[in-house]
Amino acid sequence: MTTAVKDMLATYPADLGNLNRDKLARCIEECIACAQACTACADACLSEDTVNELTKCIRTNADCADICTATAAVISRHTGYDASITRAILQACAVACKACGDECGRHADMHDHCRICADACRRCEEACNDLLTSLG
Amino acid sequence: MTTAVKDMLATYPADLGNLNRDKLARCIEECIACAQACTACADACLSEDTVNELTKCIRTNADCADICTATAAVISRHTGYDASITRAILQACAVACKACGDECGRHADMHDHCRICADACRRCEEACNDLLTSLG
Amino acid sequence: MTTAVKDMLATYPADLGNLNRDKLARCIEECIACAQACTACADACLSEDTVNELTKCIRTNADCADICTATAAVISRHTGYDASITRAILQACAVACKACGDECGRHADMHDHCRICADACRRCEEACNDLLTSLG
Amino acid sequence: MTTAVKDMLATYPADLGNLNRDKLARCIEECIACAQACTACADACLSEDTVNELTKCIRTNADCADICTATAAVISRHTGYDASITRAILQACAVACKACGDECGRHADMHDHCRICADACRRCEEACNDLLTSLG
Repeated sequence: MTTAVKDMLATYPADLGNLNRDKLARCIEECIACAQACTACADACLSEDTVNELTKCIRTNADCADICTATAAVISRHTGYDASITRAILQACAVACKACGDECGRHADMHDHCRICADACRRCEEACNDLLTSLG
Repeated sequence: MTTAVKDMLATYPADLGNLNRDKLARCIEECIACAQACTACADACLSEDTVNELTKCIRTNADCADICTATAAVISRHTGYDASITRAILQACAVACKACGDECGRHADMHDHCRICADACRRCEEACNDLLTSLG
Repeated sequence: MTTAVKDMLATYPADLGNLNRDKLARCIEECIACAQACTACADACLSEDTVNELTKCIRTNADCADICTATAAVISRHTGYDASITRAILQACAVACKACGDECGRHADMHDHCRICADACRRCEEACNDLLTSLG
Repeated sequence: MTTAVKDMLATYPADLGNLNRDKLARCIEECIACAQACTACADACLSEDTVNELTKCIRTNADCADICTATAAVISRHTGYDASITRAILQACAVACKACGDECGRHADMHDHCRICADACRRCEEACNDLLTSLG
């Protein structure tokens, strides 16, 4: 898949300060990929015969998708930067991805979609924490 | 306006634990009202002659709308409750509402839409903090 | 619940044309109320013992919530109005609310949350169609 | 960027019918890429000295981002498929991407972010129309 994430960063007309562009671009991409994986995993769980054992997974997927989508949008903006908002939503996103990766991980042996989704959550959690650290 | 927030809480089929339903219902309602006000305020700012002085306000409005929408969804769910996610998104929402209320407040004397939006942000910030406190 | 929908419309700084403000305000409010009801109904269905019979309801609720949220945002904006976008998303919202109201209606005798959600969907469908008609 | 779009489709546990998986996967990926590009373009426009000439572009970007995000979520779900909802949101997405691609295209000579965003909109419009046609 090709996104315009890096091209959009490169053409932003104002100063980005000492923001680490590679970590930022990776975090945006992981957030939008994780949101999609979580939405698809919730739906795949709904079609499993054992859906009654997957209700926590479906719910956590839904939360994680909503928070990743909001986070991707917030960190795609640079104008009038407010560090407090960026930090708080990145922290919330890392928490949601940790919880969702753990929950999907519990079903990874049984369901390939949970295994793939858990991987997406872990990559996104790592990217959020990495970007947070780079913010100083 | 009539929402189904309280009726949906009253008909939830499982145990809500010792959750404070009044604080939860208020927080959901303030989140969805604040998201709408922020979206409308960003748009109203775009139509001001002085839009070039309102770019930080427009951006903060957009962030606050995205985070309030995600928060309303997360706290509207109860199945497979994960306290860590609820806390983290409520904290992020309170931070975004504080920042957006402050920013809109700076323009409240000049623009009625900023004054009204700042009020919505402050009510939502208070409702998030109030619900957070009640979670113990 | 008190929203700032009407106050934000009243303080919009540019010309709203011959837009019917009452129908617009009602439609925004029904969209945000319906999105919340659908998110809560999907979650309530997840906690029913018969969740395996409610999977289509949960999925349609999720779609309807996503589309109502997008619609509320689009119709809360007036700057640089493009009638084609407004019409297309209102039509999509009316279709989603019809489908979700019908699906929730099938479970309304068994589950009060489905009955309440079906009502929210029908009000929102009506408000979207009413606004569409008023646009000429 | 690597997404899990195709892997999630491949591991969906129920029948996908005669859905064209390649067209579906492409459409999901274009929707999430376009949503991100539009959010970033709106923000880049906010930081241009000529922001007062870009207000329609910012607004259309915001609408397009919201509709692409909702569309990506809807077409990532397969359980309890309702063709009427899928068609309606794909049509709305194609309309929004056409309008946003045209508007960004007007500023493409002046602003590289508008040029890149217009390309993302056109690819997404084409992917939505292509998927719509394949649905028969």
